[in-house]
Amino acid sequence: MDTNEDQIRTLLENWAKAVRAQDMEGAIAHHSADIVMFDVPEPLQWIGIDEYRKTWELFFANSPGGPGSFDLAELQITAGDEVGWCHALIKVGDSTARLTMGLRQENGQWVVAHEHHSYPWPLSSS
Amino acid sequence: MDTNEDQIRTLLENWAKAVRAQDMEGAIAHHSADIVMFDVPEPLQWIGIDEYRKTWELFFANSPGGPGSFDLAELQITAGDEVGWCHALIKVGDSTARLTMGLRQENGQWVVAHEHHSYPWPLSSS
Repeated sequence: MDTNEDQIRTLLENWAKAVRAQDMEGAIAHHSADIVMFDVPEPLQWIGIDEYRKTWELFFANSPGGPGSFDLAELQITAGDEVGWCHALIKVGDSTARLTMGLRQENGQWVVAHEHHSYPWPLSSS
Repeated sequence: MDTNEDQIRTLLENWAKAVRAQDMEGAIAHHSADIVMFDVPEPLQWIGIDEYRKTWELFFANSPGGPGSFDLAELQITAGDEVGWCHALIKVGDSTARLTMGLRQENGQWVVAHEHHSYPWPLSSS
């Protein structure tokens, strides 16, 4: 039996693989109906799985896909039996974004109920 | 006995109050030694409580403090017995940032082990 951390790591690896393949159904397969998404571009937040899908439509339209287009690094997972969260860096081509996810158990499966993606502001412009 | 959600809500409210008061010890009182902070400005990440403290030195130097300088809104908390996470919007003067926190129990107390603060990119420049 995989530990909670193992299960979440597998979920994340499959998610990133789906994003690289521009496989929409794979990219949203393990997300809750009420997901709250804080994405890199505006607006401030996207609420619900239908809006979450739109964030990937936008990303796929602006990404070449394939190897190197969306690679997780420094993934760290903290999980109990019912609730977990993780953070990682995401290599998007030559740039590096930050990712935080909040997860919960639903019918015996981990689902992502919150995501936060961002780039830091350059110090020169802040 | 307060629920886990109640305890985390109180932690967050006291933290925001300490930030408004520019009370450094209050702002870092319930954070883990190994906290990983994704802050608004560069660098990509700050690791450990000593670096976390520096992010507040920078913020306090650039904030007027007082009412309206750091107010939480739309706080939503998901918590088990050992692990929890939450997200909120933060009103910083006239601007609105996004906040995600990852928490865990340490010696019977909730501590914040991860924070992610960001503003979305304006669509016109992305």
